[in-house]
Amino acid sequence: MPEAKSNADALLKSVMDNKTPESYSPGLEGVVAAKSKLCSIDGAAGKLYYMGYPIEEVVNGSATYEEVAYLFWHGRLPNVKELEAFKDEFSKLRTLPQQVMDFIKLLPHTCHPMDALRTIVSLLAAFDHNPERSPEANLNRAIALTVRFPTIVAAFHRLRQNQTPVEPDPKLSHAANFLYMLFGEKPDDTTAKVMDVAMVLHLDHEMNASTFSSLVTASTLSDMYSAISAGVGTLKGPLHGGANEAVLKMLLEIGDPARVETYVDDALAKKKKIMGFGHRMYKAYDPRARLLKEYARRASEKTKASRLFQITERIEEVMIQKKGKQGIFPNVDLYSGIIYHQMGIPTDIFTPIFAIARVAGWTAHVLEYWQENRLFRPNALYIGPAARKFPPLAQR
Amino acid sequence: MPEAKSNADALLKSVMDNKTPESYSPGLEGVVAAKSKLCSIDGAAGKLYYMGYPIEEVVNGSATYEEVAYLFWHGRLPNVKELEAFKDEFSKLRTLPQQVMDFIKLLPHTCHPMDALRTIVSLLAAFDHNPERSPEANLNRAIALTVRFPTIVAAFHRLRQNQTPVEPDPKLSHAANFLYMLFGEKPDDTTAKVMDVAMVLHLDHEMNASTFSSLVTASTLSDMYSAISAGVGTLKGPLHGGANEAVLKMLLEIGDPARVETYVDDALAKKKKIMGFGHRMYKAYDPRARLLKEYARRASEKTKASRLFQITERIEEVMIQKKGKQGIFPNVDLYSGIIYHQMGIPTDIFTPIFAIARVAGWTAHVLEYWQENRLFRPNALYIGPAARKFPPLAQR
Repeated sequence: MPEAKSNADALLKSVMDNKTPESYSPGLEGVVAAKSKLCSIDGAAGKLYYMGYPIEEVVNGSATYEEVAYLFWHGRLPNVKELEAFKDEFSKLRTLPQQVMDFIKLLPHTCHPMDALRTIVSLLAAFDHNPERSPEANLNRAIALTVRFPTIVAAFHRLRQNQTPVEPDPKLSHAANFLYMLFGEKPDDTTAKVMDVAMVLHLDHEMNASTFSSLVTASTLSDMYSAISAGVGTLKGPLHGGANEAVLKMLLEIGDPARVETYVDDALAKKKKIMGFGHRMYKAYDPRARLLKEYARRASEKTKASRLFQITERIEEVMIQKKGKQGIFPNVDLYSGIIYHQMGIPTDIFTPIFAIARVAGWTAHVLEYWQENRLFRPNALYIGPAARKFPPLAQR
Repeated sequence: MPEAKSNADALLKSVMDNKTPESYSPGLEGVVAAKSKLCSIDGAAGKLYYMGYPIEEVVNGSATYEEVAYLFWHGRLPNVKELEAFKDEFSKLRTLPQQVMDFIKLLPHTCHPMDALRTIVSLLAAFDHNPERSPEANLNRAIALTVRFPTIVAAFHRLRQNQTPVEPDPKLSHAANFLYMLFGEKPDDTTAKVMDVAMVLHLDHEMNASTFSSLVTASTLSDMYSAISAGVGTLKGPLHGGANEAVLKMLLEIGDPARVETYVDDALAKKKKIMGFGHRMYKAYDPRARLLKEYARRASEKTKASRLFQITERIEEVMIQKKGKQGIFPNVDLYSGIIYHQMGIPTDIFTPIFAIARVAGWTAHVLEYWQENRLFRPNALYIGPAARKFPPLAQR
């Protein structure tokens, strides 16, 4: 079989020449995928920056979600006048086209809210009749999508419970209006503030998996809807957006601060992953978790659901003691779940809230990437059979 | 501002430590993203292998789309009996749930067929009531999705023309049945064969952008529908699946073999990209183009549309003469467009046909990746502002 031999040689040569195993980093860990001005992480120090602004200052400086989204899309913070105009534009886009609402009504009530969101984001492409692909047109798509994520999630959630969707209230902030559309009641100021902070903290996180997937899709010069529905589908996975749901399940299962240590020991002995701890980027305390923890504490005092908070604090204490030396610390998922739970939000809406927050980051990264677009087309390291003769069907 | 300074230092340090610009390859060109047994490319020699079988032998050995899909999903070729059973299973899954057909009917007729396909693939998740995530359950999803892609595309295409969708014919092959559902008439054997060959040639192509995007989405342990709808959205872009549409447009615009050279000279002088030539992976003639060319020649003799073929041959001749030394040769998109055009298929269905073929590859790569899953989470090279104080709203 001389042909097969020479093919095998050629194949081997190509693997040796272009695809040396040494350059292979599973999951692209540590590999630079793109340049970006938007967000940076100092993992060793446990620091996160939004365009150079430390995340603690952004949150403690009372920046709202709208304000930070403006920063990501425009590259600078708005002044009072710009922010007012922007919030006005923002709130006007909330209502969905009637035909899109008709589709949401047809979705089976058993549909996972992330499946519903991904499908409706994809569908919105069909109602965008603007053929323009200019940066301005794409920025408008970014804004409209971000504004409409809460409307889609809240409408689907109410419909699956046989409730009527709630019309958005243009007087409410992005975060407050989401809670209003979800529950049909305006949230108090504290609850609205906590939701706003959680959304600011989840708005962006450098080249995370869902942002990366939006960029990969966008890099063929496909459209914003394709890129963002890919982001939604990627976020859905339990290794990414689904993690805070798993944290809450674990906390409820433990049920008592006194049982934490036994639970942790047992899980570690079985080499089971303890959700809400450790992050590929941080070898220190996740700065988002530190901020959220304070809001979770306040919220649990207010709602008298302090038991859940106590369990969480205890698991943090035990885990840092046992795993801190290995760089495993609380991540953002540890405290977000209990915050949403205390607001009365069902667990399968936790990941959609993550999406509602992250979509501004996804779109900002896509807009930035398109300024200097390059198709993502990596290589595979071939580990399959060497070149061989194709046997006819009758001879198998 | 001592704090900002130390933050800036830390930031700089982290960039220097972990994200050296030297390791940055735009578009991840030449970077190994995953190991795979499925497909390999010897770009220098212009060779493509499906699990070690040279693509020429696969096509000339008369392997059908069903047979090659079996190879990708099961890792080996089926024998006569296995192939019969598999084809039987394949054809039985073609009909869509009635509720899904109702959704397709509601799509605006102006919707791009790729937007329709992406949306309906996403929607199918809502009608999958099997909670299993086992390899077997996911293989079944892979098969069902692949089988149903033609049904979705054909149904939408007929509905947008106010025609009734055509029920699938279980006696027809995957390729022939697609043409039947599209046109409402059974294709002759030659046409069915050409479509089958085109689909075999487009089934997989190593770590291309859409396959890669399916893997990135799948790597969070999200689901098959999320991964495949991401693939559809990625393929939609003109730098990927949309290329053969652009080729046909160019050929029709040139209109005469005698005008080819002027067109090429003019385009090269203006540094305009000539569609259908060059490929990141091949520095030689794309082997898929070589095979498709013969079928395009036969098809054009049959339909007497030889003028278009002559223009294509002439552009190939001129381009190889002018750009061959730089490794720029015909790619698969040069001949696929004229094949579909001669079958009477509208140009906006070309990319959906690519998707119909590639979905077996996407799903096979996802199933393989999940066997040894690792979250895709690369880094960004931060090029934004250094750490700075966050100014309160009133002070901007």
